[in-house]
Amino acid sequence: MSALSGQRIAVVGGGQIGASWSALFAHYGAAVTLWDPVTKTYEIADKRIRRARSQLAEICPAVEAGSVEFADDFAEALSGASLIQENAPESIQTKRHLYEDIEAVVTDTAIIASSTSSLRWSDLSPGLRVSDRFVTAHPFHPPHLVPLVEIYGIDPSTCDRVEAIYRTTDRVTVRLKKDAVGHIANRLASALYREAVHIVAEEIADVEAVDTALINGPGLRWAAVGVHMGYHLGGGDGGLASYLDALGPSQERRWADLGKPALDQSTKAALVAGVQAAAAGRDVPMLEAERDRLLIDSARKRLGRTFDEST
Amino acid sequence: MSALSGQRIAVVGGGQIGASWSALFAHYGAAVTLWDPVTKTYEIADKRIRRARSQLAEICPAVEAGSVEFADDFAEALSGASLIQENAPESIQTKRHLYEDIEAVVTDTAIIASSTSSLRWSDLSPGLRVSDRFVTAHPFHPPHLVPLVEIYGIDPSTCDRVEAIYRTTDRVTVRLKKDAVGHIANRLASALYREAVHIVAEEIADVEAVDTALINGPGLRWAAVGVHMGYHLGGGDGGLASYLDALGPSQERRWADLGKPALDQSTKAALVAGVQAAAAGRDVPMLEAERDRLLIDSARKRLGRTFDEST
Repeated sequence: MSALSGQRIAVVGGGQIGASWSALFAHYGAAVTLWDPVTKTYEIADKRIRRARSQLAEICPAVEAGSVEFADDFAEALSGASLIQENAPESIQTKRHLYEDIEAVVTDTAIIASSTSSLRWSDLSPGLRVSDRFVTAHPFHPPHLVPLVEIYGIDPSTCDRVEAIYRTTDRVTVRLKKDAVGHIANRLASALYREAVHIVAEEIADVEAVDTALINGPGLRWAAVGVHMGYHLGGGDGGLASYLDALGPSQERRWADLGKPALDQSTKAALVAGVQAAAAGRDVPMLEAERDRLLIDSARKRLGRTFDEST
Repeated sequence: MSALSGQRIAVVGGGQIGASWSALFAHYGAAVTLWDPVTKTYEIADKRIRRARSQLAEICPAVEAGSVEFADDFAEALSGASLIQENAPESIQTKRHLYEDIEAVVTDTAIIASSTSSLRWSDLSPGLRVSDRFVTAHPFHPPHLVPLVEIYGIDPSTCDRVEAIYRTTDRVTVRLKKDAVGHIANRLASALYREAVHIVAEEIADVEAVDTALINGPGLRWAAVGVHMGYHLGGGDGGLASYLDALGPSQERRWADLGKPALDQSTKAALVAGVQAAAAGRDVPMLEAERDRLLIDSARKRLGRTFDEST
C-alpha cells in the first residue's frame, strides 16, 4: 500500500480530470502539486479533490495518505516530480506550448503524460526534446472511479514505468500498439453513440429505452466479459471461430444497416428532450451522485471489498 | 412472489434460449411445457434447465417453484398456455410454418412471442391470423441471467400483457416504437463490434486490450448509467445540451474516422488467435462459468441482495 509515498507528482491543469487525478495520486501516498494557469480554479478543484478523496476512502482506505498542494509557481510545482500528468484543453498548440515550458524545468528522468482524449501521440510529440519520455495516458471519466488508463508511447521502458505508477493506484492499464484518434475506449464509445443517436433520430426507440436496453443487456455483458470474449462465449464449445462461421455474415449484414446520423438541430433537440424525460426531474449533481454510487460499489467489488463491510 | 403460479407457458424450441426461458418461467412459478421437434435435445435441455434453475435460486429463492415438462405432443404442449415463447432457428420460413401450426391449436387469448434476435416483426407477421397477439420479445443471452427483453408489437394491450409476464420474472423490458433489424441492443452491439474488429484488424491494439479497455472503461459506465445519460453527465451543469455544443463536432469527426472492416479470413484468424490468447488456457465452459458468476452477482445486487447473504 501507499507505494507512491515519497514520490512527487505534478498535475498540470486543474479542471475535472486534473482534480480527479490529484485526489487519486494523493490517496495512494504521493505528494501532488497541482498547477493551473488560472489560480481561481483552485477553489473548485479543492472541493472536487476533497469529494474524490472521500469517495476513494470508501473504496479502499489510504494506509498513509499523501497531499495535494496548489502551486503558484510553475517551476516550483514541477520540481522533483517523477510524473507530470498534463490535462490542458484539447488543443495541439496549447499543449505543445506547455510542453516547451515543462521541458525547460523537469528532471532528466521525469515522464510527461497527456490525459488527451482526442489527440494522438503523433499530434503532440513533434518538437518535444524528450519524446521518449512522453506518453499519452488517457483515463476514462471520472479517473478516480473508472479504472481504465490507455497508454501509448514509443519507448517501452517509459511505458513500463508510467504503467507501474498507474497500477499502484489500482488503475487498469492497456497499451496501444499504434497511435489512434480516440485510442480504444473512445473509438468504441463513438461507434456505439452513433448508433444510439440513430435509433433516437429514426424514432425506433426513445432515449430512455436505449439506455435501459444498454444498461440491462449489452452493457452488462460487456462490463463482465468484454465484446470479443462475449462472442467467443456465444459460439458454444467451438468458441469464436464457430460464432464467426455461423453468425459473421449476419453481423456484416447488420453493419450495412447501421445509421449515419448527423448531430443537426432537430436530432440534438430530440436527444436533449429524451435525457430530460429520462432524468425525470433529477438534476446533473443528483444524477452524478447516483452514477458515482454505482461506480464506487463496482470499485469496491473489483478490489475485493464486500458491500456491507463499511456503511 | 410466484405471480406466475397457475399459469401455463409453452416454450417452443429447446436450444440454449428455450432452456433458459423455461428455467426462468418455472422459477417464478409457471407450469412450463417445452416442446422441440427433435426430442433428443431434451437431454441437454434438461441439464441446462437444472443448472439455470440452481443459478436462479442463488439470485432469488423461488417461493413456490413451478415445473418444466418435456412434451411429445405439440398440441398438448400448447394447450391452455397464456404465452407461447418461440425460439426456433432464425429463418422466416421456419418460423412462419411454426406459427401456422401454433395458430391451429392455441386459445383465443394466448400471446405468441418470438425470441428472434435478427428478424423483424414485419418479417414474421404476414400470414398470421392473430397478428395483434404476436410480438417480438428478444432477450439478451443468457435470458435467465441478463434482464433485458425488447418488445415490439402492434397491439398495445398485448404488449402490456406480455410485458407484465416478463416483469413478474424480474426482467427489465423496453418497448420499440418501430420495428428494426437487431432491435435496440443488437444494433448497439453490432456498431460496437464493428469498431472492436477494426481496432484489431488495423493492429491498433490486440483483442485482450480491447476487452480490458471496454470492461474497465466505457462498459462499466454504460452498465451504470447508459450512453445518453453518460454524455448528459459529461456536459457539466449544462448537461447534454452543453456536451453536444462543445463536443458534438468532435464526435462527428470521430464518426468519420470509424472503421469498416470485413470479416475476411485473415481478420477472423486474428480475432480467434486474440481470444485464445486472452482465454489463457481456459476453455469455453470455464469462461462461461466465470461470466455467469459475474452476472449472478450483478443480478443479486440489482434485486437488492448483498453478496455475502448466502454462500
